[in-house]
Amino acid sequence: MGLEGPLVLASRSPQRRTILEQLGIEFEARPADVDELDTGDPFAAAAENAARKARAVPGDTVLGADTVVALEDRILGQPADERQAREFIGSLAGRTHVVIGGLALQRDGREQGATVATTVTFRELGPPEIERYVASGEWRGRAGGYAIQGRGGTLVRTIEGDYLNVVGLSVAALLELAPDLREVGRSAAR
Amino acid sequence: MGLEGPLVLASRSPQRRTILEQLGIEFEARPADVDELDTGDPFAAAAENAARKARAVPGDTVLGADTVVALEDRILGQPADERQAREFIGSLAGRTHVVIGGLALQRDGREQGATVATTVTFRELGPPEIERYVASGEWRGRAGGYAIQGRGGTLVRTIEGDYLNVVGLSVAALLELAPDLREVGRSAAR
Repeated sequence: MGLEGPLVLASRSPQRRTILEQLGIEFEARPADVDELDTGDPFAAAAENAARKARAVPGDTVLGADTVVALEDRILGQPADERQAREFIGSLAGRTHVVIGGLALQRDGREQGATVATTVTFRELGPPEIERYVASGEWRGRAGGYAIQGRGGTLVRTIEGDYLNVVGLSVAALLELAPDLREVGRSAAR
Repeated sequence: MGLEGPLVLASRSPQRRTILEQLGIEFEARPADVDELDTGDPFAAAAENAARKARAVPGDTVLGADTVVALEDRILGQPADERQAREFIGSLAGRTHVVIGGLALQRDGREQGATVATTVTFRELGPPEIERYVASGEWRGRAGGYAIQGRGGTLVRTIEGDYLNVVGLSVAALLELAPDLREVGRSAAR
């Protein structure tokens, strides 16, 4: 069963668009405007938010994706302001957290889902380093208050698992949900 | 003991420059022209190449860095041509390799060194995916024939360890060699 029309990405994230472009997949982005869960079980929240996005956008094949940052049992959403960004980065410093990516693929009325967890450990950070990161403004609109593909990468000591999942979209999980996307990628590259 | 002059980066790698910029460190880049080891023990090669670069460039505080990709006991250097890039990517597909970063810091006549190992596992890749990556040309000038911060990231399933080490420079290892660079970063941000 192949794709009917192009893949629709139900997300406004430039990172997710870049990942699909790098993969060579033809797609169009149509942001979904949904209420997102930001409490409760992080895996359930990531899966549910991805499914809500996929359901909210019309298309033959629609991909919803969500990224949840969990420190122990607490979900760290997008910081509301500088004060909260400072609190988030300070609480992540020197510790290990989990980034959970939820994917949901709607096609021909069927829905498939997956979650991917990547473990991220921050360096110990002194107050000046935290302050400098917050002052950069990069925390805005980022789950957990950092962007690993930007300056936030310098805050990280190690990761364990799928890096692109932390950026915003696990390619490995996507290709397991929809192996035929490899073929689309191939034809798009020609 | 603080820095006398600005840090000198003995490398022509744009990735290493970007990492130092993201860290907020003042530096100047002066590429080192040295013969590099590309056989033998990968850890020894990374350490020796970094030291050769640091010694080859004048400056009060000089950082040399090198990245070695090792698949089992074989060092995969920069592919000489498309054929070799295809061979490298094909041999990395579906398997785990190690990326070893060597750092050498020369200051006031003393030399310190460190090596950092990150484990990278590629997805299974079909011939069309390998071909598409090779056709992108991104393999040129890259140890192992791929760039994890570019399209090459979509070839990777998981990593274990320091991501920026794979990009080209471990921030954590650098700050352990030279903790005072944090302070330089702080003043540069003001």
